[in-house]
Amino acid sequence: VKTVRVDTARVDKAGHRHFMAKEIAEQPAVLAEAIRHYLPADEDAVRLPGAGLDFSGVQRLTLVACGTAYYACLTAKYWFEKLARIPVEVDIASEFRYREPPLPAGTVALFVSQSGETADTLAALRYCRGKADRIVSVVNVPESSIARESDLALPIHAGVEIGVASTKAFTCQLAVLLILALKAAADRGEMTPEALSDHISALRGLPHLMNTALEADDEIRDAAQQLSSARDVLFLGRGLMFPLALEGALKLKEISYIHAEAYASGELKHGPIALIDSMMPVVVMAPKDALFDKTVSNMQEVMAREGKVMLISNPAGLAAAGDGVWLSIAMPDVQDAVAPILYAVPAQLLAYHTAVAKGTDVDQPRNLAKSVTVE
Amino acid sequence: VKTVRVDTARVDKAGHRHFMAKEIAEQPAVLAEAIRHYLPADEDAVRLPGAGLDFSGVQRLTLVACGTAYYACLTAKYWFEKLARIPVEVDIASEFRYREPPLPAGTVALFVSQSGETADTLAALRYCRGKADRIVSVVNVPESSIARESDLALPIHAGVEIGVASTKAFTCQLAVLLILALKAAADRGEMTPEALSDHISALRGLPHLMNTALEADDEIRDAAQQLSSARDVLFLGRGLMFPLALEGALKLKEISYIHAEAYASGELKHGPIALIDSMMPVVVMAPKDALFDKTVSNMQEVMAREGKVMLISNPAGLAAAGDGVWLSIAMPDVQDAVAPILYAVPAQLLAYHTAVAKGTDVDQPRNLAKSVTVE
Repeated sequence: VKTVRVDTARVDKAGHRHFMAKEIAEQPAVLAEAIRHYLPADEDAVRLPGAGLDFSGVQRLTLVACGTAYYACLTAKYWFEKLARIPVEVDIASEFRYREPPLPAGTVALFVSQSGETADTLAALRYCRGKADRIVSVVNVPESSIARESDLALPIHAGVEIGVASTKAFTCQLAVLLILALKAAADRGEMTPEALSDHISALRGLPHLMNTALEADDEIRDAAQQLSSARDVLFLGRGLMFPLALEGALKLKEISYIHAEAYASGELKHGPIALIDSMMPVVVMAPKDALFDKTVSNMQEVMAREGKVMLISNPAGLAAAGDGVWLSIAMPDVQDAVAPILYAVPAQLLAYHTAVAKGTDVDQPRNLAKSVTVE
Repeated sequence: VKTVRVDTARVDKAGHRHFMAKEIAEQPAVLAEAIRHYLPADEDAVRLPGAGLDFSGVQRLTLVACGTAYYACLTAKYWFEKLARIPVEVDIASEFRYREPPLPAGTVALFVSQSGETADTLAALRYCRGKADRIVSVVNVPESSIARESDLALPIHAGVEIGVASTKAFTCQLAVLLILALKAAADRGEMTPEALSDHISALRGLPHLMNTALEADDEIRDAAQQLSSARDVLFLGRGLMFPLALEGALKLKEISYIHAEAYASGELKHGPIALIDSMMPVVVMAPKDALFDKTVSNMQEVMAREGKVMLISNPAGLAAAGDGVWLSIAMPDVQDAVAPILYAVPAQLLAYHTAVAKGTDVDQPRNLAKSVTVE
């Protein structure tokens, strides 16, 4: 295990009450930095470090990670499949490494880890050595073992993250993975130059939109005050919002100790709806996109059973479906593909303010370590 | 939607208090029946109906389902990858259908549904029509839409299932999927005739072992009595026991309304361990196999934080790691590959007796329907 020295004098809370609050707030700045590294200002193209990677011959992607980084990979599956038409398998590192999965020719294996030292992810990477065509990693620490043992390491440029619950590393992981999916789509001729340009513009506009999202802080603090008395919470989302629901539930679990669990909205009727009563608030993450009506229909089933819904959506979504919800939180309008990066902000703020309301140790939650360097 | 006529005079509880209890108890008999259909008594070979399916040229399997059938698919991923070395992707039907995933040449798509009428699964099947090389389904109702629209329909022979929470359909789905994985392994030359013969023997011995597992009924009823006061429960498992942990949690959720959630044991340290205290019992499903020591190490982390562990294992596992656990449930020794089919029994009985102790409506839990034929 490599210990990264942190100059504590330079890592302070910058006026915030917790590192987590500071790290949530600095996301517009670090995201802009991450995006600048991969999308040169003067052209509509993706630039990867070193020899880069050409996706035109790639048959299949295997993405492997743990915890929050695993949810970043689940999000990336949607991007790679939808935009670049590459079949993607995503797996939990501790499962992948012991299952010894087949890796047919044409497989690129990609590993995501903030610290770059996550034990199971590193072991999964080593399993792929000599079997996968290329080994790519997305890390925050460029000197880490995972970065050093990759054919191509893509730094996320998030800066030092102190809060145990990952925030800015997650959104920067997402940004780098989306940029990589855009590169794949372009390499494979699956995206027109105009569409590529649109996606790049959406990414460049994201830091600004994130500032707007951060302005919902007071509103979210009030909502969190009410959520903090819940013992159990359900998160629902479809498509790109499903992995984000998983991340929102994990964040709440980690720092507020509320038992939050996420489901793909369509799975609600296959079991978890039995849990719904007035004691089980349901957080629904749903911008008004192509899947919105389906999610709203699931949301209405929850409300018909006295479930209390917190709807996080854009103004059009709240206007269309906000009637009768318990609480609503407004996000700015955003292009579909980048939406999960933006919607990470209310998920983080909700967990943060709920934990503060409950008085837990936000930056050092019980039982958790920042990086899991043992199995 | 096709309505299957059920002769109510012939479908009774056969002396059991609930249909669910009857359906759990009849698993040895229906499993023996399912196995007999696919494994002729006089030879060590798999027989599929109709023109069958040759796996030798299959590049990739996509398995799609909802709810309990989705967990059967997650289990099958381990079998197909480990035994037959075919890369497998598993997806929730409501996610798959809207993601419009790429299906490269050489893909076989397989759909699992008890009723054969699950709306999202049927829509996913129709998306694959003309894109996948073959469409295969594993269903309980051979006249169902999903069966009729498949190139090859594999009935599970579980008989009519009345309880809303699926039990015998799940174990029969698992048996048919394992048999299919064995066929794939044989077709691809990935399994010696001796190993095939061993696996077939293990399957044939399963109904008898299941009877032994059912004898733990009193022990499990006592454990359920204690579990019934919990509001939240965590299930942990690794490898083949991970999907089973998901199914155990779903079963408990569906009929007892306890908020049960499952995690892959290796993910514990990446978040959910923050929830652990003496109020959150943890059910660990772990026969003494190659992954046992890893799971035990996770279990000990739970116990070090005052978590109460219910360990379900075989005698050797309980002898090695049973010290200090809150409750333990003994299962007979069983061959690794068929273990999840056997361990479904204690998961079902635990949910059943907990629900009975809580006085919920076991066969008709609130908010749930037997088959989800609308989106």
